[in-house]
Amino acid sequence: MTKLPTYLVPSRSAKRAHYDRESIDPILDEALYCTVSYAADNRPFSIPTAFVRYGDKIYIHGSVGSHFIRELEKGIPVCISVTLMDALVVAKSAFHHSVNYRSVVIFATAEKITGHAGKTEALKWITEKMVPNSWDYLRPIKDNEVAKTTVLAFSLEEAAAKIRTGMPSDDKEDELLPIWSGLIPLPKRRLAPLPDDLSLNIPLPPHLL
Amino acid sequence: MTKLPTYLVPSRSAKRAHYDRESIDPILDEALYCTVSYAADNRPFSIPTAFVRYGDKIYIHGSVGSHFIRELEKGIPVCISVTLMDALVVAKSAFHHSVNYRSVVIFATAEKITGHAGKTEALKWITEKMVPNSWDYLRPIKDNEVAKTTVLAFSLEEAAAKIRTGMPSDDKEDELLPIWSGLIPLPKRRLAPLPDDLSLNIPLPPHLL
Repeated sequence: MTKLPTYLVPSRSAKRAHYDRESIDPILDEALYCTVSYAADNRPFSIPTAFVRYGDKIYIHGSVGSHFIRELEKGIPVCISVTLMDALVVAKSAFHHSVNYRSVVIFATAEKITGHAGKTEALKWITEKMVPNSWDYLRPIKDNEVAKTTVLAFSLEEAAAKIRTGMPSDDKEDELLPIWSGLIPLPKRRLAPLPDDLSLNIPLPPHLL
Repeated sequence: MTKLPTYLVPSRSAKRAHYDRESIDPILDEALYCTVSYAADNRPFSIPTAFVRYGDKIYIHGSVGSHFIRELEKGIPVCISVTLMDALVVAKSAFHHSVNYRSVVIFATAEKITGHAGKTEALKWITEKMVPNSWDYLRPIKDNEVAKTTVLAFSLEEAAAKIRTGMPSDDKEDELLPIWSGLIPLPKRRLAPLPDDLSLNIPLPPHLL
């Protein structure tokens, strides 16, 4: 890893911070969206969007006409935030309530992917993150669909993860109070696929079973 | 509602935008965290944090020593983003893949809550959003815990929701292709509480059952 700029080093809860890709990548690979922020005239703007990590970069896409995408492709500074909430941490005091979470923050500028093949490949990665192994099953992407889409890549060089795990940390003097403390897990699940009206008689393909 | 500034009006997908509190509030009330962004020297910074909506404002809290909180309390422009992902939208073409989501974006500046009673009340709202009806059961909050905590409020006057619901919108010419299309629901659940070692013999209180 490169040496981190000071703004990446958290001043509090420093023990929750991680800068290694072994900590960062699994969070990026599990999360289905990121929140992308940029500033214009020192005013912040944030937009949630789908993304995929592939190698040392993450990729987002959008309409070539999107105001958001056109701002980012200028190469302005961007902050990308990814958060997974795993559990509520219920302590014996309100003060020690917390959340078990895994989050990543990335500071980067956009690199516009310009070649047709490179754009198509990134769109495949984004699609297969949502629905693994689905690309070859779908109606093939058309040249004009690729042309209508902008793909932007962001380096993971300046990235950090923050992770909280485990049980509540109550004050020593509260430990014997007869007040329940523990975790409420918050799992995200994929339920069974629901067909639309056009697919009632189409068998689910193996990658969706 | 006040008339919206132009930066709140989406240029694309305008039909997905909503500016009424009947659309905005349920999203804020369901989401357990928001992503708060601000800019310094035109560089964006984003941090996920717990929040609660109460009336016409949302409230966040943090340590009085937190760099993030101290930046926000200066009254600089802030963008707050809240996102709920409800389902993956699986179309017959990659191009029409989408996500059913409900999101809110808020533009505001922080109002610092200074009175002890007002701060305590906001901390109660935040705690009871995580665990409804739990405040009176917990070890009472201490004056120095309130003193160590900064509470910031943000008006909902400049807020907008974006919502996608429903099935995929494939191209007319693709509708009869024998390719499965539909939704994969992504519900978030609260599982049964898991006690920590100090609570193995403490009955679950009624508000956690």
